[in-house]
Amino acid sequence: MEMEIHSVCLPPKQTTLQKLKHKLTEVFFPDDPLYRFKNQTWCKKLLLGLQFFFPIFQWGPEYNLSLLRSDVISGLTIASLAIPQGISYAKLANLPPIIGLYSSFVPPLIYSNLGSSRHLAVGPVSIASLVMGSMLSETVSFTQDPILYLKLAFTATFFAGLFQASLGLLRLGFVIDFLSKATLVGFMAGAAIIVSLQQLKGLLGIVHFTTRMQLIPVMSSVFKHKNEWSWQTIVMGLSFLVFLLITRNISMRKPKLFWVSAAAPLTSVIISTILVFCLKSKAHGISVIGNLPKGLNPPSSNMLYFNGQYLGLAIKTGLVTGILSLTEGIAVGRTFAALQNYQVDGNKEMMAIGFMNMAGSCTSCFVTTGSFSRSAINYNAGAQTAVSNIIMAATVLVTLLFLMPLFHYTPNVILASIIITAVIGLIDYQAAFRLWKVDKLDFLACLCSFFGVLFISVPLGLGIAVGVSVFKILLHVTRPNTVVLGNIPGTQLYQSLNRYKETLRIPSFLILAIESPMYFANCTYLQERILRWVREEEERVKANNENTLNYVILDMTAVTAIDTSGIEMVCELQKMLDKRSLQIVLANPTGNVMEKLHKSKVLESFESNSLYITVGEAITDITTTWKAQP
Amino acid sequence: MEMEIHSVCLPPKQTTLQKLKHKLTEVFFPDDPLYRFKNQTWCKKLLLGLQFFFPIFQWGPEYNLSLLRSDVISGLTIASLAIPQGISYAKLANLPPIIGLYSSFVPPLIYSNLGSSRHLAVGPVSIASLVMGSMLSETVSFTQDPILYLKLAFTATFFAGLFQASLGLLRLGFVIDFLSKATLVGFMAGAAIIVSLQQLKGLLGIVHFTTRMQLIPVMSSVFKHKNEWSWQTIVMGLSFLVFLLITRNISMRKPKLFWVSAAAPLTSVIISTILVFCLKSKAHGISVIGNLPKGLNPPSSNMLYFNGQYLGLAIKTGLVTGILSLTEGIAVGRTFAALQNYQVDGNKEMMAIGFMNMAGSCTSCFVTTGSFSRSAINYNAGAQTAVSNIIMAATVLVTLLFLMPLFHYTPNVILASIIITAVIGLIDYQAAFRLWKVDKLDFLACLCSFFGVLFISVPLGLGIAVGVSVFKILLHVTRPNTVVLGNIPGTQLYQSLNRYKETLRIPSFLILAIESPMYFANCTYLQERILRWVREEEERVKANNENTLNYVILDMTAVTAIDTSGIEMVCELQKMLDKRSLQIVLANPTGNVMEKLHKSKVLESFESNSLYITVGEAITDITTTWKAQP
Repeated sequence: MEMEIHSVCLPPKQTTLQKLKHKLTEVFFPDDPLYRFKNQTWCKKLLLGLQFFFPIFQWGPEYNLSLLRSDVISGLTIASLAIPQGISYAKLANLPPIIGLYSSFVPPLIYSNLGSSRHLAVGPVSIASLVMGSMLSETVSFTQDPILYLKLAFTATFFAGLFQASLGLLRLGFVIDFLSKATLVGFMAGAAIIVSLQQLKGLLGIVHFTTRMQLIPVMSSVFKHKNEWSWQTIVMGLSFLVFLLITRNISMRKPKLFWVSAAAPLTSVIISTILVFCLKSKAHGISVIGNLPKGLNPPSSNMLYFNGQYLGLAIKTGLVTGILSLTEGIAVGRTFAALQNYQVDGNKEMMAIGFMNMAGSCTSCFVTTGSFSRSAINYNAGAQTAVSNIIMAATVLVTLLFLMPLFHYTPNVILASIIITAVIGLIDYQAAFRLWKVDKLDFLACLCSFFGVLFISVPLGLGIAVGVSVFKILLHVTRPNTVVLGNIPGTQLYQSLNRYKETLRIPSFLILAIESPMYFANCTYLQERILRWVREEEERVKANNENTLNYVILDMTAVTAIDTSGIEMVCELQKMLDKRSLQIVLANPTGNVMEKLHKSKVLESFESNSLYITVGEAITDITTTWKAQP
Repeated sequence: MEMEIHSVCLPPKQTTLQKLKHKLTEVFFPDDPLYRFKNQTWCKKLLLGLQFFFPIFQWGPEYNLSLLRSDVISGLTIASLAIPQGISYAKLANLPPIIGLYSSFVPPLIYSNLGSSRHLAVGPVSIASLVMGSMLSETVSFTQDPILYLKLAFTATFFAGLFQASLGLLRLGFVIDFLSKATLVGFMAGAAIIVSLQQLKGLLGIVHFTTRMQLIPVMSSVFKHKNEWSWQTIVMGLSFLVFLLITRNISMRKPKLFWVSAAAPLTSVIISTILVFCLKSKAHGISVIGNLPKGLNPPSSNMLYFNGQYLGLAIKTGLVTGILSLTEGIAVGRTFAALQNYQVDGNKEMMAIGFMNMAGSCTSCFVTTGSFSRSAINYNAGAQTAVSNIIMAATVLVTLLFLMPLFHYTPNVILASIIITAVIGLIDYQAAFRLWKVDKLDFLACLCSFFGVLFISVPLGLGIAVGVSVFKILLHVTRPNTVVLGNIPGTQLYQSLNRYKETLRIPSFLILAIESPMYFANCTYLQERILRWVREEEERVKANNENTLNYVILDMTAVTAIDTSGIEMVCELQKMLDKRSLQIVLANPTGNVMEKLHKSKVLESFESNSLYITVGEAITDITTTWKAQP
């Protein structure tokens, strides 16, 4: 068979500076965010810049009445959900309920100017509220020192915002990618269980309850205070819980009936408030929210706490809640953007969420982000632009100004039912089952974060889960696959002997595909493993009386990078095989591997015919030369 | 062009248990350590087992007089080096000098029975001694509380041994691979400078010296105690230092003259001792070792410290010195094994080094391992088996029993000169320069560990360096390369358009090679990057009035693994491209990627013709079908 042999090229020469620039662009600007600005006039560039930083200028000019109609409907719908949830989540974070309403007013207004998602419904969310409550109350008691607690909450919110905005500004958005889906499935489920169990306090009417968050102390606290259980509370709580779960179920089966579950919480609040008001002389066991101050968000920048012994706690809480709320906000934004085929810019979203939280921390708000459940209802209700957030904020404004006294008799138990209904959807056992089926290690990461959150603590559970995910990457790098290849007869294709049954070994050749970069972390392993393949092949050849082994071909297609340890390994391997009169041949090294092999001058110690563009050409060329020899 | 199209196979079916078993074997037994035992009689297996655990039974029976002759020569040579170095390194660890001699007696004997390297010269080493000294003396003063300090040193040695042996037993040897070569180059150089600066105490005759290890406190301590500088000490120290450096240089230029540098330290000790003895009435400024107890290693198991407030410190010190000494020992063993073309089993070596340290901790020894400098001299002196270690131990034994009083007048300054000469070789600036030339990120890791050790602390510097190395892996995974491929005319080869100038684009196709596994950590990036390639290609096509883009082929050869996030990304990408009337085609997915795609049923939503064994077949088949259409 006659065949042209192609030589292996080096990639085009680049200076270190060019390479650095290229690498930095890939790391920080993979999406080339400024491509719209290229080849534009100055005036156009200015407009584009304005649109870039304030997406409202992008869709604002084209806004019309029909869009407004949709946005008003969806805005009112999410407002009816945001008011009871806001109050509930504030309680989850051990904050005064009014803070929840404040947080549903200012942040949505800011987001609607800066954010690029059209469907995100902004406000407090369960996970971030829970984490903030659990982390702060571990050190500071919210009953004994409520002012300090409030200060720390605002400060944590400020740092959360600062952290989020910096991630966006510095284009380090990939940090949140390290919370893999698998980790989040476990984390969310664990957190949902923790949150639900915490609600037993409200649901059973217990007064003295543990502030700890783990499964065991919470359950023991529930049964230790059996004497505090109030049957009126339990009956009311359970009946509304059942009502809410049924409405939730209806909406899930028929997405068109989204308004059923959207209206249910406010309906429950209204009915239960009226009930308690009517029975107030008889129902002493049922605790109520009590007086809420009327009026708009008071400024709180004077409450930020920048020095003192709790600063570290505030920063830590800010970081953890910041990254969690960011993850939720970005994921929600991406999900709905994908459904409507538009793109949200992760880094810009981070800045929007970050600025909104920094502004929030100065106007008596705690951590807010895009909530999954409310965004879904927003989407289903037909929201078209961020104006639905403005409508929601306006509704909350009206509530804050005029309707606060109405919440006086709202029972706490109803808030507990609302929270349980909201978080129960976070337990995605089907996703966990899918993980088990497709990827066992992902399932393990999921389990770790689940049990970590349930039994240890929220931040540690999260840390463990990230650790498992990173360990998985390292394990893959540390113990890469090596596959023996064979030829598919009649072709130039070389594929795994084990996988493609029709493949045949080539006598005198051992062809190994290395399926990973060659790094310090795996070069000892790779060397041992390759030598073992060679030993086993030699034994097999001997046992079957075949031609002796002469060439070891390493298919380097999947070796996408090599470091100095890897280069040394290749060099050493070449020497060791040489001593056994085996020649090593490299097939298809990728650009930067080739460049490094060239720079380190390793190839100079190789035979002349030991570098080919494909395994096929290597074998053709070597056998031809071989036969030509006497 | 007629061509047979091959379908893409799934890998052979395996149950979860089989897969787990395979994975565990690859992780823990990559070298298949028991392969010799296969198909053997029981009797043979027993013998092999004995040889497996005690390599001495492997070479013992074939031992002969000619081997003994070589071993005696090399054994005596390294003994002449081990005695002064042992005393010096004990002082480096702030321990009584005699401990250094004890440590050159028991551990070599144990290693010679268990170890599989033939050239390793066992004893105390500079780095581990330095680290032990620096970590322990940060908390416990060796002058005020020498007994506690000694106890902690033995306990740390015990834990170092326990850790090393467990790594070997549990076959977790790959842990030490995470100390990459690049990291070690920087670490060693930093440690060598720290050690040398510490020796200024002895070299200048300073009495009150800082116990801290960082560059700045040490240098300020040197100049603060200027009044303590003793000119007699300085003159003596510098002249012997020059002598030692010259002999070292001679041996380095001519490896045959290895005995020059090997004999120099003992010669210096003898000459300087005689000098001081003769001048003892006049040289008050020169501090001497003083009385050393005669006799063999006393047992020290009663000095191990298993409870109390310093246990944590002892364990931490044990872990750090354990991993450092292990890294040096294994690296040295591998280096000389490669030179003589035999293999050392990393895990077995770890057990040998671990047991030797555990036994050492019970017989008044501190951390020992294979020393690079002495092993090199051992090798050059013609050592053939571990018997050279036995000869060395015997020489140390004679010294311990009879010659101890001779060291009374040995000046401390000579020990400082010996240490400086020994560690100066650890500063491998050429290796650092090579790192810079070949791999900038490796060089960065090297710099980090260098400055970390110099300015922060030894364990933290090491930690930073490991962090940088792991970060490098993660960066490669987080921001993988994507390469646009083109066809080399007249072949079925597809290579990088940028690298191979002769390649041509195929109209209507965009071919992208993804050069990394698809993980949670990179799937957002990959999606954005692929969409950007598509956008740019569409713009290019439009600008050049070419055929519109119809197919996006992803060459999956280098995608060696995929997790659930990756699968979701592929799925989402397919939907997004579908909305732009682009069809996605996967070429050559590897075995386990194919398996996961199959299991997750992603491929069901793909078109029928979107899976090919190579890019070439994909293009041939698609264009043929296309032309066949009306």
